[in-house]
Amino acid sequence: MKKNVIVGQSGGPTAVINASLAGVYKTAKDMGADTIYGMRYGIQGLLEKKIVDLGEKIRNDMDVELLKRTPASFLGSCRYKLPESSEDKAIYEKIFAILEELEITAFFYIGGNDSMDTIKKLSDYAQTVDSPIRFIGVPKTIDNDLEGTDHTPGYGSAAKYIATVTKELVRDGLIYEMQSVTVIEIMGRNAGWLTGAAALAKSEDCEGPDLIYLPEVPFDVDVFLEKVKKLVAEKQSIVIAVSEGIKTADGRYVCELSAHSDKTDSFGHVQLSGTGKYLSDLIIEKLGCKSRAIELSTLQRCAGHLTSRVDITEAYQVGGTAVKAAFEGKTGQMVILKRVSQDPYICTTDLYDVHKVANLEKKVPRSWITEEGDYVTAEMKNYIEPLIQAELTPIMITGQPRHIIIDDLPDIK
Amino acid sequence: MKKNVIVGQSGGPTAVINASLAGVYKTAKDMGADTIYGMRYGIQGLLEKKIVDLGEKIRNDMDVELLKRTPASFLGSCRYKLPESSEDKAIYEKIFAILEELEITAFFYIGGNDSMDTIKKLSDYAQTVDSPIRFIGVPKTIDNDLEGTDHTPGYGSAAKYIATVTKELVRDGLIYEMQSVTVIEIMGRNAGWLTGAAALAKSEDCEGPDLIYLPEVPFDVDVFLEKVKKLVAEKQSIVIAVSEGIKTADGRYVCELSAHSDKTDSFGHVQLSGTGKYLSDLIIEKLGCKSRAIELSTLQRCAGHLTSRVDITEAYQVGGTAVKAAFEGKTGQMVILKRVSQDPYICTTDLYDVHKVANLEKKVPRSWITEEGDYVTAEMKNYIEPLIQAELTPIMITGQPRHIIIDDLPDIK
Repeated sequence: MKKNVIVGQSGGPTAVINASLAGVYKTAKDMGADTIYGMRYGIQGLLEKKIVDLGEKIRNDMDVELLKRTPASFLGSCRYKLPESSEDKAIYEKIFAILEELEITAFFYIGGNDSMDTIKKLSDYAQTVDSPIRFIGVPKTIDNDLEGTDHTPGYGSAAKYIATVTKELVRDGLIYEMQSVTVIEIMGRNAGWLTGAAALAKSEDCEGPDLIYLPEVPFDVDVFLEKVKKLVAEKQSIVIAVSEGIKTADGRYVCELSAHSDKTDSFGHVQLSGTGKYLSDLIIEKLGCKSRAIELSTLQRCAGHLTSRVDITEAYQVGGTAVKAAFEGKTGQMVILKRVSQDPYICTTDLYDVHKVANLEKKVPRSWITEEGDYVTAEMKNYIEPLIQAELTPIMITGQPRHIIIDDLPDIK
Repeated sequence: MKKNVIVGQSGGPTAVINASLAGVYKTAKDMGADTIYGMRYGIQGLLEKKIVDLGEKIRNDMDVELLKRTPASFLGSCRYKLPESSEDKAIYEKIFAILEELEITAFFYIGGNDSMDTIKKLSDYAQTVDSPIRFIGVPKTIDNDLEGTDHTPGYGSAAKYIATVTKELVRDGLIYEMQSVTVIEIMGRNAGWLTGAAALAKSEDCEGPDLIYLPEVPFDVDVFLEKVKKLVAEKQSIVIAVSEGIKTADGRYVCELSAHSDKTDSFGHVQLSGTGKYLSDLIIEKLGCKSRAIELSTLQRCAGHLTSRVDITEAYQVGGTAVKAAFEGKTGQMVILKRVSQDPYICTTDLYDVHKVANLEKKVPRSWITEEGDYVTAEMKNYIEPLIQAELTPIMITGQPRHIIIDDLPDIK
């Protein structure tokens, strides 16, 4: 009987999501998998039989290395929400028919909360139909909001990018001898893990941001303006890091106050943007002070040119662990990272029941945010610091990072 | 008699402006300068006697190396426009009194068009009062719009950043199997040198941007929408690079169409921003297509974490050449870069009469922009390519770039 596996990527991309794909591929190969299939655009592509043979593209260890250093989803991604099997049995029958036709023994899905929901539903369905196919989730999200794992692959590199760019923006803000307030808008809908990383910019050679606002704490516009007003009286250049997802006490997103963005994605998430601009305009209007908003936008999730080596290594490892687990007969599990020791930093992988992960969001503990809710504590800095250590520079060709791309790879017949 | 020199930085910062400062410092030291003074915040700080002794901060070659790799103006900068000596003789008398008190023999100003205007005026005034002080301009601007020089230090690193980030955004745009149009807004008020660099993203492993709009060619909104409409019918992900400064045929900035930003700086320049957002919103409204705007904003000028080694080396060299020139008795000159050979790329430094530079803006030749004005030609790519080659990675400490900062350095008594 064939020992084929299939792997997909789902949700937003990260700078290291392909390192997990590389980990799945290399480990499956080394453990004797026959064919390693990739689904284009996640489960959505699978349903359309958009399936590729990864072996045709990843031919040697150089390709594996390139894959590790290529940002954004190599296979393409989706935001497809699988219905409950009770609601739509046909879809499950279709998926399993495709998997059985390909003689799939193990199914790997690299993604975040919504992807783990997919793994949960597929593994549950497999049990009801006595399917031997194993379903393992591989964690991935820059948001770091997955339950059960110490942190998520993708977070470390995004945190490193945010810390570095914040440091550079603090420097940039100091060049003119004039008052200026820079508001940096950072991703993070409901969890402030990314925004908190701005605090790492504070170091011997940088004073770091002056204020940091996470979505875990209700945001008071008036109190905010008071604080900025005080800072403006004290110092020349002020830098503020805000999460795109900060809300007022009545539960409205700050960016909605500016009557911006009414778009929602297929999961019903509001598309957030404009928080920094709104606050910056407010500072100009209310305090008559020079201010600019900088939205890190997509760059913070796809900046393959500035990644954390720790993050890439761990992303690769969780992919490998997923394959081992499946080949050992495990299913309905998500691979997690366990911090064994903080100093020296030691982290191992383990498994976690995907039912305890799906659709949950891990927030930043309130105790890691200052009393006044305008900065993060030393505990949070200590938590993040090991995750941004060391670099894995891209393979540079004629002055630019080299990437491995899929687009010439045909779907299997 | 003392052999003291003074150096200042002016205008917007770059990732390599401090490499020129390092070149001035190291060369002056090596050529026997006694004290090397630095003016805080350019000529504006000089007038307030905000002057530091650089020797107190840059103590060894490690400091010089750190300075080369530290983005944004180490000394601080200004946008101060010196009046004509005929209008305000007092200011010139004050400046020269300060310089004579410090026994300054040479004055170096690292900056762009406006800074060269300062060098012109000071060197002209020096002649009228028979002052022996030499005034040499050191070119610096990410905009690459200085006359007389093949290119400007700072441009190569900004171009490398823009090309790399564009490449990453093209990848990011391909992850979902859905139509999307990404509009990248790039700096460049009247000259499209920076925006043109987005074309370098087009390579074996990246299709690059689909459209590129430079301010040298009038922008037609309707023609633009037609082109995007056609592309939307043809392909899934479209990436468009636009200069913040593109104007319609009647001379209005596109960003002004969105009734944004009426702010002007002390040179009367309109503060441009919102061009990408305006076009992106237009695409959503008129074509009913998913679209996002990404403003590279300040990051493209201060990204010390991604620099061109060629650029840093040349930035250092022009600083050194400026000192040699002054010590040989030259004044009223700007150091220029001369491309001796394209392949292999060989570039030397020379001097150029600052009177022929000041207040001029070098535009991208029309012949380097396609007939339809929606892309750049191979000539332009060939021109830029050598300038982004090789890297000089920052000195990374605990996962972040290390910078050398001035703020603990006291003003001289």
